Amino acid sequence: MNNDLIYLDHAAATPMDGRVFAAMEPYFSHDFYNPSSPYAPAVEARRRYEEAKHSLAKNIGAKADEIVITAGATESINLAFSAVTGHVVTANIEHHAVLSAAAGHDNTIVSADQHGLVPADVIKVAIRPETELVSVALANNELGTIQPIREIAQVIKHERQTRLISGNQTPIYFHTDASQGIGQIDCNVARLGVDMLTINAGKIYGPKQVGLLWAASHVKLVPQIVGGGQERGLRSGTENVAGTVGFAKALDLASEHRKYESDRLQKLRDKLQADLIAAFPEAVVSGHPKHRLAGHLHISFPKIDAERMVFSLEARGVLVATGSACAANKGTRSHVLMAIGLSDELADGSLRLTLGHLSTDENTLKASQIIIEEIKREFDRTSR
Amino acid sequence: MNNDLIYLDHAAATPMDGRVFAAMEPYFSHDFYNPSSPYAPAVEARRRYEEAKHSLAKNIGAKADEIVITAGATESINLAFSAVTGHVVTANIEHHAVLSAAAGHDNTIVSADQHGLVPADVIKVAIRPETELVSVALANNELGTIQPIREIAQVIKHERQTRLISGNQTPIYFHTDASQGIGQIDCNVARLGVDMLTINAGKIYGPKQVGLLWAASHVKLVPQIVGGGQERGLRSGTENVAGTVGFAKALDLASEHRKYESDRLQKLRDKLQADLIAAFPEAVVSGHPKHRLAGHLHISFPKIDAERMVFSLEARGVLVATGSACAANKGTRSHVLMAIGLSDELADGSLRLTLGHLSTDENTLKASQIIIEEIKREFDRTSR
Repeated sequence: MNNDLIYLDHAAATPMDGRVFAAMEPYFSHDFYNPSSPYAPAVEARRRYEEAKHSLAKNIGAKADEIVITAGATESINLAFSAVTGHVVTANIEHHAVLSAAAGHDNTIVSADQHGLVPADVIKVAIRPETELVSVALANNELGTIQPIREIAQVIKHERQTRLISGNQTPIYFHTDASQGIGQIDCNVARLGVDMLTINAGKIYGPKQVGLLWAASHVKLVPQIVGGGQERGLRSGTENVAGTVGFAKALDLASEHRKYESDRLQKLRDKLQADLIAAFPEAVVSGHPKHRLAGHLHISFPKIDAERMVFSLEARGVLVATGSACAANKGTRSHVLMAIGLSDELADGSLRLTLGHLSTDENTLKASQIIIEEIKREFDRTSR
Repeated sequence: MNNDLIYLDHAAATPMDGRVFAAMEPYFSHDFYNPSSPYAPAVEARRRYEEAKHSLAKNIGAKADEIVITAGATESINLAFSAVTGHVVTANIEHHAVLSAAAGHDNTIVSADQHGLVPADVIKVAIRPETELVSVALANNELGTIQPIREIAQVIKHERQTRLISGNQTPIYFHTDASQGIGQIDCNVARLGVDMLTINAGKIYGPKQVGLLWAASHVKLVPQIVGGGQERGLRSGTENVAGTVGFAKALDLASEHRKYESDRLQKLRDKLQADLIAAFPEAVVSGHPKHRLAGHLHISFPKIDAERMVFSLEARGVLVATGSACAANKGTRSHVLMAIGLSDELADGSLRLTLGHLSTDENTLKASQIIIEEIKREFDRTSR
């Protein structure tokens, strides 16, 4: 991007890290072989592909043969839902991919609280004897709220024990989409207590359209894309060696710098939030006050037209979002903001500011000043 | 790849063209935006994405809004089959992706002839009043045989007229996987007479895991991957701007150089074939003698173990295939060779030599000499 732009939309897309690009580059024109070919250079491409999968698996505390490489998080989520045919439980603040996949099943959509949190006891109440899948994202992509995944996992563990005792043989799985959280939160699958986990590379400075589904060995996935039998028959198609190697590098970097980066972003975000609230005490910060992604700030200004604001800020070189990029182009109010009961006025005045690698002390402070100036200008204009 | 290697496996994978890489490169780290974001740099990424789709569409004589970008040919084929629920017709020499997708339907698998050709009248006989889809690849990936797509299209057109007259309202679609042919054959969808067409970038010196499905506007596709509603709701997931721009560049280059390149490869292939047959008159060339991809040579040597041969040739720097890379690693005989009735002995002595951009007069001649030497050595060894 141009150096005179300040990017505050890391939740929508991230620039590829130079080290990721360097890792991928050999596999485009030089080591381009089909990993299923028999000669040594192709066997080497296969080896690098498998090594990348091992590295991805290791970073989430899993085994390589429990991972399916997909074309991004959406395909991974759809594949997770393919594991079941019966009743599913998810929440009204989930990503469209989860809600759309759930719509293909008998489902219960539970309500998040006003912070966008999905309490474990709400999930507990929604689970029926025939429920086969619970899917709750690790962190919400609009609000940044981090969900109590371990507590929900306990609920599901308890449900399994109950079924065991009562002789109910219906399996129940717990899936989490960790795409939005993996850069800032430890995603060890055993510690989270999930059965399936979705992540993608495009949100962690890796290539777009590369993701994975991890599924514990007891989960029976049903392939959506059949053919040559790649990925243990679970997802056919010639393997994306470059993309997978890049994904592995991106996750390595994310894991390595997670603590440092999330501390750094939290300080920047807290300062930005404090400055904006000091300037506009009537502004409302959404998302959980404590359990929230470090770089995430969702803030609503009463009587402000956020869509106009995006363009005013862009004219000053600051790129922000009104909400999820996936919904942003549709001219409809965010289902997440409706779900947490934000008033229409506040919803329409909402900005999502998400910090990341491109954020520095200097450019975040500058952005803060520009946002304050532009919001003031808009207040003056509308109150005239 | 190393310059001292001679690559004769272009049907398995192709090295990315430097011009394709140059077209993609800006979209990794610089113009990395989510095309659904509202600010100008993201709108520009969207514009480039749509422009790439227009360019892809134009190259096959279609409209951009009839195209769905997928993660490669296999997903595209699966999506094509999702358009129907009823009876499908395909042939016993088709790619595993087509055969696997067909296996999910009531199906008739017709037999190709000894050249791997699927005659239109064989398709005609297999079509029932309730048939909804016929899928025949433009060119076979193992033999290179080019199918009579236009004649089959006429059969389907005739079937439609018959149904119209008889009041049978079941729609019937014709799908072709042109992945293996598009680099060498004009793929104008109107001239081919198909309703759906699959191509991918990885076979035409573009990025892997990028493909498309073209479907005429009267075809009702059913999405396999649901979520944010990208690709007109037919295939959700954040768009792969870099990959799609690269795909468009690759297809542009393929279209531009198609005539020149296919003439060039045909001369090289014919010379290679003539040299090998002159040295081994008992060798058998499979695939149609006339209707065959220009760079394709499938040749079988009686009493030769082709798998050993692949490694002997590799030791001399020549990379060849025994068959399709997709089946090659499975230790089973190619279903294509069984389908055309090749004896087990010949099937086990089969090499697939596929020429392409990396082939020159010089290295093809050198490869020819090395193949002759190594086959002779193997004959000597086994007849001792």
